[in-house]
Amino acid sequence: MALDLEAIYTDLHRNPELSYAEHRTAGIVADHLTALGLEVRDGVGGTGVVGVLANGDGPTVLLRADMDGLPVQEETGLPYASTARGTSPDGEDVPVMHACGHDVHVTCLLGAVDALVADRASWSGTVVAVFQPAEELGTGAQAMVDDGLYEHAPRPDVVLGQHVTPLPAGTIGLRPGPSFAGADALTVRLFGRGGHGSRPETTVDPVVLAASVIMRLQTVVAREIAATETAVVTVGSVHAGTKENIIPGEATLGLSLRSYTPEVRERLLAAVRRIVAGEAAAAGAPAEPEVTIGYSFQALVNDPDATARTGAAFRAAFGDQGVADPGLITGSEDVPALAAAAGVPLVYWLLGGEDPQRFAAAFAAGTLDSDIPSNHSPSFAPQLHPTLEHGVEALVVAAREWLD
Amino acid sequence: MALDLEAIYTDLHRNPELSYAEHRTAGIVADHLTALGLEVRDGVGGTGVVGVLANGDGPTVLLRADMDGLPVQEETGLPYASTARGTSPDGEDVPVMHACGHDVHVTCLLGAVDALVADRASWSGTVVAVFQPAEELGTGAQAMVDDGLYEHAPRPDVVLGQHVTPLPAGTIGLRPGPSFAGADALTVRLFGRGGHGSRPETTVDPVVLAASVIMRLQTVVAREIAATETAVVTVGSVHAGTKENIIPGEATLGLSLRSYTPEVRERLLAAVRRIVAGEAAAAGAPAEPEVTIGYSFQALVNDPDATARTGAAFRAAFGDQGVADPGLITGSEDVPALAAAAGVPLVYWLLGGEDPQRFAAAFAAGTLDSDIPSNHSPSFAPQLHPTLEHGVEALVVAAREWLD
Amino acid sequence: MALDLEAIYTDLHRNPELSYAEHRTAGIVADHLTALGLEVRDGVGGTGVVGVLANGDGPTVLLRADMDGLPVQEETGLPYASTARGTSPDGEDVPVMHACGHDVHVTCLLGAVDALVADRASWSGTVVAVFQPAEELGTGAQAMVDDGLYEHAPRPDVVLGQHVTPLPAGTIGLRPGPSFAGADALTVRLFGRGGHGSRPETTVDPVVLAASVIMRLQTVVAREIAATETAVVTVGSVHAGTKENIIPGEATLGLSLRSYTPEVRERLLAAVRRIVAGEAAAAGAPAEPEVTIGYSFQALVNDPDATARTGAAFRAAFGDQGVADPGLITGSEDVPALAAAAGVPLVYWLLGGEDPQRFAAAFAAGTLDSDIPSNHSPSFAPQLHPTLEHGVEALVVAAREWLD
Amino acid sequence: MALDLEAIYTDLHRNPELSYAEHRTAGIVADHLTALGLEVRDGVGGTGVVGVLANGDGPTVLLRADMDGLPVQEETGLPYASTARGTSPDGEDVPVMHACGHDVHVTCLLGAVDALVADRASWSGTVVAVFQPAEELGTGAQAMVDDGLYEHAPRPDVVLGQHVTPLPAGTIGLRPGPSFAGADALTVRLFGRGGHGSRPETTVDPVVLAASVIMRLQTVVAREIAATETAVVTVGSVHAGTKENIIPGEATLGLSLRSYTPEVRERLLAAVRRIVAGEAAAAGAPAEPEVTIGYSFQALVNDPDATARTGAAFRAAFGDQGVADPGLITGSEDVPALAAAAGVPLVYWLLGGEDPQRFAAAFAAGTLDSDIPSNHSPSFAPQLHPTLEHGVEALVVAAREWLD
Repeated sequence: MALDLEAIYTDLHRNPELSYAEHRTAGIVADHLTALGLEVRDGVGGTGVVGVLANGDGPTVLLRADMDGLPVQEETGLPYASTARGTSPDGEDVPVMHACGHDVHVTCLLGAVDALVADRASWSGTVVAVFQPAEELGTGAQAMVDDGLYEHAPRPDVVLGQHVTPLPAGTIGLRPGPSFAGADALTVRLFGRGGHGSRPETTVDPVVLAASVIMRLQTVVAREIAATETAVVTVGSVHAGTKENIIPGEATLGLSLRSYTPEVRERLLAAVRRIVAGEAAAAGAPAEPEVTIGYSFQALVNDPDATARTGAAFRAAFGDQGVADPGLITGSEDVPALAAAAGVPLVYWLLGGEDPQRFAAAFAAGTLDSDIPSNHSPSFAPQLHPTLEHGVEALVVAAREWLD
Repeated sequence: MALDLEAIYTDLHRNPELSYAEHRTAGIVADHLTALGLEVRDGVGGTGVVGVLANGDGPTVLLRADMDGLPVQEETGLPYASTARGTSPDGEDVPVMHACGHDVHVTCLLGAVDALVADRASWSGTVVAVFQPAEELGTGAQAMVDDGLYEHAPRPDVVLGQHVTPLPAGTIGLRPGPSFAGADALTVRLFGRGGHGSRPETTVDPVVLAASVIMRLQTVVAREIAATETAVVTVGSVHAGTKENIIPGEATLGLSLRSYTPEVRERLLAAVRRIVAGEAAAAGAPAEPEVTIGYSFQALVNDPDATARTGAAFRAAFGDQGVADPGLITGSEDVPALAAAAGVPLVYWLLGGEDPQRFAAAFAAGTLDSDIPSNHSPSFAPQLHPTLEHGVEALVVAAREWLD
Repeated sequence: MALDLEAIYTDLHRNPELSYAEHRTAGIVADHLTALGLEVRDGVGGTGVVGVLANGDGPTVLLRADMDGLPVQEETGLPYASTARGTSPDGEDVPVMHACGHDVHVTCLLGAVDALVADRASWSGTVVAVFQPAEELGTGAQAMVDDGLYEHAPRPDVVLGQHVTPLPAGTIGLRPGPSFAGADALTVRLFGRGGHGSRPETTVDPVVLAASVIMRLQTVVAREIAATETAVVTVGSVHAGTKENIIPGEATLGLSLRSYTPEVRERLLAAVRRIVAGEAAAAGAPAEPEVTIGYSFQALVNDPDATARTGAAFRAAFGDQGVADPGLITGSEDVPALAAAAGVPLVYWLLGGEDPQRFAAAFAAGTLDSDIPSNHSPSFAPQLHPTLEHGVEALVVAAREWLD
Repeated sequence: MALDLEAIYTDLHRNPELSYAEHRTAGIVADHLTALGLEVRDGVGGTGVVGVLANGDGPTVLLRADMDGLPVQEETGLPYASTARGTSPDGEDVPVMHACGHDVHVTCLLGAVDALVADRASWSGTVVAVFQPAEELGTGAQAMVDDGLYEHAPRPDVVLGQHVTPLPAGTIGLRPGPSFAGADALTVRLFGRGGHGSRPETTVDPVVLAASVIMRLQTVVAREIAATETAVVTVGSVHAGTKENIIPGEATLGLSLRSYTPEVRERLLAAVRRIVAGEAAAAGAPAEPEVTIGYSFQALVNDPDATARTGAAFRAAFGDQGVADPGLITGSEDVPALAAAAGVPLVYWLLGGEDPQRFAAAFAAGTLDSDIPSNHSPSFAPQLHPTLEHGVEALVVAAREWLD
């Protein structure tokens, strides 16, 4: 392998960029892809980069990496720790860190392209390398699609990708069917009519309306979703009023919805909308509630057949012990948008990035949750080796399974 | 007085009749009125009787008595106790008793007409004696109005009437403004969609809908009615389902609303309708709730000026100690329909019917509620004397105040 | 096979008996077992029968069948349809039908014992054949244990059994881990203090208490059980009050709980108890709620290793197509009590009993739920052949896997 | 009258002081009282001042004024508007205004003492003039009592006082029995256990607990207080959580309770405490809720007999049109503490301070609420004349009624 993976990684890690601001990262990516001989298009969906490696007849495989960092102050103490800052959507100056490991994803995908180029005599078909912006906002993949991704690059036969996590380095987590949660963040504004606390009859009390909505929302999971399905409706915040004797004019709820199939997700969203509208009507509210979706990830559903096929390739390459079903993952991913837009199967796996000994010790002690920093933690720090090499190989193995 | 009040009373008491079945009673009334020389019309609003005593120029005064008994098994042990039976609206054979004292009302009004006829030289004007059916159903007064009461008889200048209660015999309870509660009985059917208890997601659970409605209904009095107003919303019954593991198709609530002004009553009714509709919408109910009004009494509001005038006449006749403000009365009356239809003032008072010594003893002991049988009790038994004479005199005094 | 399975089956089907009244059935069973040379004990746990077939050294295998019918009026139109009647626990005369297929279970277990006896030269060990009463009440298995089952018969190394269902005849449904739901029927009495509907302040309103409890119970599944677990809390009935203007003294709820692990079941029960107690305290209730458990099935959890071993034997005998994972089953079974008391693995499977062509047609049409009568239906009618033979063979194959 | 009321008033109005910081005001008061020949004690209960005017044998009458201003930025535009600032209990620098008219109360009481001194030959007895701090906090009157008020001054036979309001200047509002509301401000902290929004089963969700508490609190007024009583329970604020997908550890409610009798107030407080405790138990909360009382005004109940006597004196002095029953007042007052500590009757009245023409116009237009600035408004500005003179005369008339 000609590329120095560690050098690429530590540079990216030192210089993380927030969603849709991945200009430096995209430049590095584009330079490497160009150098490797791919046809490159940048600025897709803002800062996305697409490289096409056409290598004769055969299937087309899309490999995807995401590029953005998070507004987190790094606390790893690593020599290559980030001190970068960025500008949040609110215009605030914030620290930035690759706290979710997208630097691993970029590095491994560059490495995989490098390997596939080097080995191009042994396969035929087309590889589309997609480096997307703004996964953390849940919108980057769709932004690339909307900006003509599949006009700039051939429509693939399969979409493949990976996410580094605190599983033991050298292992892969792969699960057929629903894998990552669909997640929606909703803000619900409930409108009443304020007034003096001693004269509720002149008001429409939004505090009572909010309470009734919250109680009713409990019925969504309890009554409207099959017990064998997996769904969560959490009201994480409720705020109304400033003073005990003044009835405020409105209340605001923050909701988090989780689901693992589009059907359940639609049912959750419809139920929330129906309930807040019905409760507002029951309250005689002077205005309909406002339901705003802050972010929205659809559930990631790995295609069962394609996952079985890819999993078999992994087991052949890494042994049976190297691949495990990690169960349902509560995190979310926007990669499904790439497969959905193309109408093709998706296979997305977890790439182990944790020191296996540390993992084993924490597992034995029952302290995985507390001892192992997970994604989004200021202390999240993948073990570089063999994680980077393994991530490259996983992409190559998976891609080769689908190429001729 | 030519009439034997006690004989009339004991005969009526022995032979009570249910609402709209007061045929025998109406016959007795009509015979007496005819004998006294009044112009009589019977069958008004079913079994109602109207007698008009025209006595020259002057104001017209309407005096009202109600005639119906109740489906109660008498337990007074009196020699003239009822053993009568009747047919309930459901077609059931039931015992009947004058448990609410309407026999007193009829007797006293006949006595008052007798007295006014005897004394006709001393006054001028017109007296309209109205004996109405079905006060217990809340519909008899309106039925007479709808059946042309004010075509058969002149429109009055004031409506007067009385109700016997367990105040001390010889006293009168009179209150300006809101006096008797408006009362509405509502049946609310909430529609869901039934199914197996293990699969709530295939259903719309009417049990949860009913619970949410009940909780929400608490906000009507707590939030929508001024603290200085008087209102009650009681859900007296809730029924749904037959088996713990079958989600039923519907739930039924029985509601009782009480209020003392038309404005509050309207607000209660509107709030109930709004809440059940809103909650059904929040539940995704397959059909709108059905709200049926079983009976409906408007609040009895005594005209303040007319009440002051009548009260002054009572005090002149019976002394200051003989007239008291009984406070708000939780019972209901349908006599307001007679005044409302005529657009004239109403003055309606309580006629004491309890043995004063027994009353005093129970009052002193704090056992009024338990020791003194009140209206609708199987043991309700007014003290005949002086109650009958006093009831006659109260009607005459009040009528004379308004006649020339 | 010496036994005439069809004759035994049709006789049992014609003569179903209610729970704990399986006297005739038990007699037939005991006669057959005795004739087959087993050591037999009857009257265990009421009407249970145990037969022990000791055949040299080796493991002990318990094979279980349940014997009771249901109070259902048969509507199959079969020549051997039941016209039997029985006496319900309430003392009522009711129709009886083998609507849940326990006649299949008894017949097959007799057939399996017959086959094992005939073939005893080829295996060694001990077979314990348990014919239990009252599975439908959820108490028969425990009743046999409590009555000394494991004193009368050797403690087994594994408990095996089967349930006929509308899967295609000739197939077996087997699932490792949680399989049949734990189910509890609870009656909750909530105590308030009654009074007149116009004076709620003199009462503790049990209708409002019931509503608050119902709303709160929604939070059990929504908040207290992991989204990845399977649980249902249904309030199938709520009853309080007789009249809209009388606040009743109590309210009664009927609850159905479902779960698939003992941990979740315990959590559900604890949450229900905690919520009704807390809500009663919040209401100022004059007495603590009464929570009565009507029936209680623990979840049936197939031992993963034993199930894998048994499933392998099935696949070897019937082919891969003959064994499928039926998913979580919402029905319940009391057989776990036999394994729990012995502290040994349980393997319990579904025995297909439906005409495969009819099944396939309904499956294709998406009308399985409506077209195929399932257990407890008045039209439930297993296809006799090959169901009976297959049920015998399944028991024999499973038993032989565990015997030497 | 020797004192220049307008000069005193405008000086006080220009120099308002916050609760317990009424040093300048107290100095002015003490100087005047001393000059008028009273025995003066200052620093009672912090900044309170007491002057005793002993004038021979006879009853003792306590006249009370309160001295503190409010943290309001004056917007009256008056030449004597305040530009003063003060330090809030939180240590913040805030504007200060006599927005509640306590400057009127001080001025009028000084004027009344002046008049009583001038006219001392015509009466005998003792007048105790109490100028109290911190009425706005609800604690100043009690602070003076606790600091020995009735050791420094003779225990009175009656407590008299007045509050300026936007009734027409020249009129008095007086109501026997319950007059000003009892008011309590409560902060309720509900404790749960936080966690990730996708794993509610690891948490005790305080948002749901808060909602259930709010719904339950609606039942206090709806079910626990008689419909004929007057009470309000308002949850004016609810706050929990910061992010939609994080379940917070606690929730905080701000409650305002209002009542007009000690019995109702006690019932409200007990119900709130019972409900939050019960709901926390129902939720399985890890800690009991904290209920903190922020301020607490008892209801002001005018002694019926003493009020009748004082009212008769007012009517004799000012005519029947000059005195009216203002109905229940939703505001609160801490003056009852002075009467309660002495165990004597209280008579407290409203002093009209609004331009009668402006009042009449707003009343006719139905815009009293919007057009007439009321107490605590930045635009509150009593009409100086005849308000000051009338306030002096009302105190003198009332005091003389009770003095010999």
